[in-house]
Amino acid sequence: MRAAALTNKFERLRDHKSFELLVMAIIIFSALVIGVKTYDMPPYLISVVGWLDTAITIFFVFEISIRFIGEEIKRDFFKSGWNIFDLVIVLVSIIPIEGGDMALVGRLIRIFRVLRMVSLIPELRILLDSLIKALPQLGYVVALMFIIFYIYAAVGSTIFQDINGDLWGDVSISMLTLFRVMTFEDWTDVMYETMEVYPLSWMYYLSFIFFTTFAFLNMVIGIVVNVLEQENAAARDIENPQPDLAEIMQQIEELKVLLQRK
Amino acid sequence: MRAAALTNKFERLRDHKSFELLVMAIIIFSALVIGVKTYDMPPYLISVVGWLDTAITIFFVFEISIRFIGEEIKRDFFKSGWNIFDLVIVLVSIIPIEGGDMALVGRLIRIFRVLRMVSLIPELRILLDSLIKALPQLGYVVALMFIIFYIYAAVGSTIFQDINGDLWGDVSISMLTLFRVMTFEDWTDVMYETMEVYPLSWMYYLSFIFFTTFAFLNMVIGIVVNVLEQENAAARDIENPQPDLAEIMQQIEELKVLLQRK
Amino acid sequence: MRAAALTNKFERLRDHKSFELLVMAIIIFSALVIGVKTYDMPPYLISVVGWLDTAITIFFVFEISIRFIGEEIKRDFFKSGWNIFDLVIVLVSIIPIEGGDMALVGRLIRIFRVLRMVSLIPELRILLDSLIKALPQLGYVVALMFIIFYIYAAVGSTIFQDINGDLWGDVSISMLTLFRVMTFEDWTDVMYETMEVYPLSWMYYLSFIFFTTFAFLNMVIGIVVNVLEQENAAARDIENPQPDLAEIMQQIEELKVLLQRK
Amino acid sequence: MRAAALTNKFERLRDHKSFELLVMAIIIFSALVIGVKTYDMPPYLISVVGWLDTAITIFFVFEISIRFIGEEIKRDFFKSGWNIFDLVIVLVSIIPIEGGDMALVGRLIRIFRVLRMVSLIPELRILLDSLIKALPQLGYVVALMFIIFYIYAAVGSTIFQDINGDLWGDVSISMLTLFRVMTFEDWTDVMYETMEVYPLSWMYYLSFIFFTTFAFLNMVIGIVVNVLEQENAAARDIENPQPDLAEIMQQIEELKVLLQRK
Repeated sequence: MRAAALTNKFERLRDHKSFELLVMAIIIFSALVIGVKTYDMPPYLISVVGWLDTAITIFFVFEISIRFIGEEIKRDFFKSGWNIFDLVIVLVSIIPIEGGDMALVGRLIRIFRVLRMVSLIPELRILLDSLIKALPQLGYVVALMFIIFYIYAAVGSTIFQDINGDLWGDVSISMLTLFRVMTFEDWTDVMYETMEVYPLSWMYYLSFIFFTTFAFLNMVIGIVVNVLEQENAAARDIENPQPDLAEIMQQIEELKVLLQRK
Repeated sequence: MRAAALTNKFERLRDHKSFELLVMAIIIFSALVIGVKTYDMPPYLISVVGWLDTAITIFFVFEISIRFIGEEIKRDFFKSGWNIFDLVIVLVSIIPIEGGDMALVGRLIRIFRVLRMVSLIPELRILLDSLIKALPQLGYVVALMFIIFYIYAAVGSTIFQDINGDLWGDVSISMLTLFRVMTFEDWTDVMYETMEVYPLSWMYYLSFIFFTTFAFLNMVIGIVVNVLEQENAAARDIENPQPDLAEIMQQIEELKVLLQRK
Repeated sequence: MRAAALTNKFERLRDHKSFELLVMAIIIFSALVIGVKTYDMPPYLISVVGWLDTAITIFFVFEISIRFIGEEIKRDFFKSGWNIFDLVIVLVSIIPIEGGDMALVGRLIRIFRVLRMVSLIPELRILLDSLIKALPQLGYVVALMFIIFYIYAAVGSTIFQDINGDLWGDVSISMLTLFRVMTFEDWTDVMYETMEVYPLSWMYYLSFIFFTTFAFLNMVIGIVVNVLEQENAAARDIENPQPDLAEIMQQIEELKVLLQRK
Repeated sequence: MRAAALTNKFERLRDHKSFELLVMAIIIFSALVIGVKTYDMPPYLISVVGWLDTAITIFFVFEISIRFIGEEIKRDFFKSGWNIFDLVIVLVSIIPIEGGDMALVGRLIRIFRVLRMVSLIPELRILLDSLIKALPQLGYVVALMFIIFYIYAAVGSTIFQDINGDLWGDVSISMLTLFRVMTFEDWTDVMYETMEVYPLSWMYYLSFIFFTTFAFLNMVIGIVVNVLEQENAAARDIENPQPDLAEIMQQIEELKVLLQRK
């Protein structure tokens, strides 16, 4: 009975507006602390920031405990991906890490606390969800693009390997080089170098740019069409459902039968 | 009574076509003077331009006075953001500024007189208004993008700080570097430098490019869909309102009842 | 009478399929000759190409004469912008130009003969016409963009003039530099240079990129919406005209009156 | 009779799910082998990869034989472009090629085996087909763009040839340089070089960028409109066919006649 009362109390606390605002403020503050840590600071400030970091960690432990205790059915807590995300971030920040490589990992994980801003603001959560949902729709175009990249990288690495090993050393390096070509970043330097040995190699680059640009364009258009269709479907559902023209036709036919029967 | 007559007279003057054209001509002329001032000139031309500048300032003081006096309810004058904008520009140009840093500020403020062209041409005013109106709709996408930038900048500045302080010194410098990466401006130079120490750092850059491109794309599509919807809504309102199919159906039902009753 | 017969004969010749194909072949051949002239050639080839050039010029004089004589009402000939374009190109190529700067101008004018390909293929003519028609619709956006460029160029030239005269020397050079920044071409080099003197000048560049990108986006979306609307309007006109729902409603009302009257 | 039985047996084998999966696995494996070959390997691994290559070739010969024998009407086999593509790839890989330039060609052809992944996955095949189908629609825009490129290249090569032969040597080199300008890749370096001799040559570049960007934009919008129209047409076909409003009108007219006749 006491547990249920506690759950109830904590649930009310969790859903309280000012509690939410406090959590938001702490998250923004922790983001600022993360930013401050990248600047050169005098020693006393470093220790202040260290204390603040510990305080923020403790607050987050409390906050997630309250949210966990405030959940009536404990299993539901783990059904939300965002809850698990928050829990992992908090648990990892508790682990005491001293010096060496692990200290770096610890600092990096603390940076991801900023993502908690997304988990707290519903509009951002929806935005991120819709971004993630849109990804699989692009699956086949991405697969096709990967095949284009792989073939061009294999060809490039076979032909140009001896010209510049840093750019065409093996398939993976070649794919990175091709990504660079796709972003038009100093791509002519890459091309002019190979054109000295193979004067016709401009065909390799131009066809690659053509294919990837065209595939990318198709991807964008695919998304636009998709979004517009969803919008139209949603618009149709919202408008009050209208009788079919076919139904009206049938009614008129019945009228005629009635009239003629007389 | 005399004041009212003056207001009336000035109102007529303000709305007169040739007065508008004169103001427009003076604004274009002042824009040219601003442009001329950036060229190297012989001393006598500098003084000519200085006199022209004073003349333009005096004309603008007169013009805004006429518009203020021509307004029947004086408070309405301050309700338009464009009026306040004009007033501030004119008032600041009157302040006599001699030498030093303030002279530069004075010159800069005079440049913004060109913006008065926008306040004068209704079509441009509508365009700018619609641009500004579109901004808040993008609010959440911009917020999400800022979070992505902030997290990547914090991570980048934590890991790459010792490799190149000029690019990854602190969070704000890192954000500028990441903006540079997003515009594909010599981004491979930035990447190759960090790949010498961390060979896997290409994942950092590629994931960043992927996320920002995708978010940007979403933003663009969001605007397109939004604009199209507004267009459709506007089109629907313009078309003469049509009876519902449901209404027609009901009418036919009533007909049937009438017939059957007989 | 003889003139009319000649006109008729030439009109038939002008509209003959094989004549059109011959003209097309000559235009393509003249384009090839123009291309060949840019390569280094042995002296005997240069004279061959010179002869070919003269032959092509003579053919074009004949062709345009046939088209002019073939036109029944001579004034109609000058109503088509493409005819005047062809005439100017042909007339200018007849003028004998020897040595000096004028030889270069003569060669340049002959290059524009390639554009006659556009005037000959109706599909390309339609495409170019629609491109040119779309321009004025963009007028105000272009005007707004010019104002943005001008203000930023005046500001940039005022503040940065002493840092790098080659980039910010006067308003027109600054506008070219800003166009370079808009295309993201080594824009960070420009920025880093001014940031050494004014550390906050990144705001100048970022705000400029933001404004121009946003205005450009708006322009693109404007065109898309415009094109879609035209398509929809065209589609509506093509579909067989349908009676209004309002008309049907009225008919049903009349039916009811008829029934009730009985 | 026995041949028919064999055909039948092979047809069943060809359409068997696990056979398809096996072929897919071998294709992916052959793609990996192609990738591995670009890395530096110890001699024993090279021979292992060589054996794998032979094994894969043999498997592909078997696979295509099965598909050929499994086809009831042999001529239908050659009607599919993908079948011919597969056959060519397999036939060419059988040809024994030793040393020299031909070895390189052999390796390159084997790379195109990866494209068989596209021929096997229906979704990718549809995607590629639709990409290829969209190309001719763009025909005229591409033709117009080629003419723009050709004219600008001829002009550029005529005027700038003596400034930098590497960039403006002849028409074809100039077209490559202009493509580079279109991708904004170090285009200002190209421009600043010619501006030293011809200070007004920025007009050449800016007008070129303007024309190509505008034509490209038009192309993109053309595709979008096209795709949307196809979508709309498809949507209309799928919806159950509805009677015309005109038909309903006619029915109501008939009703009226019936009523009035009584």
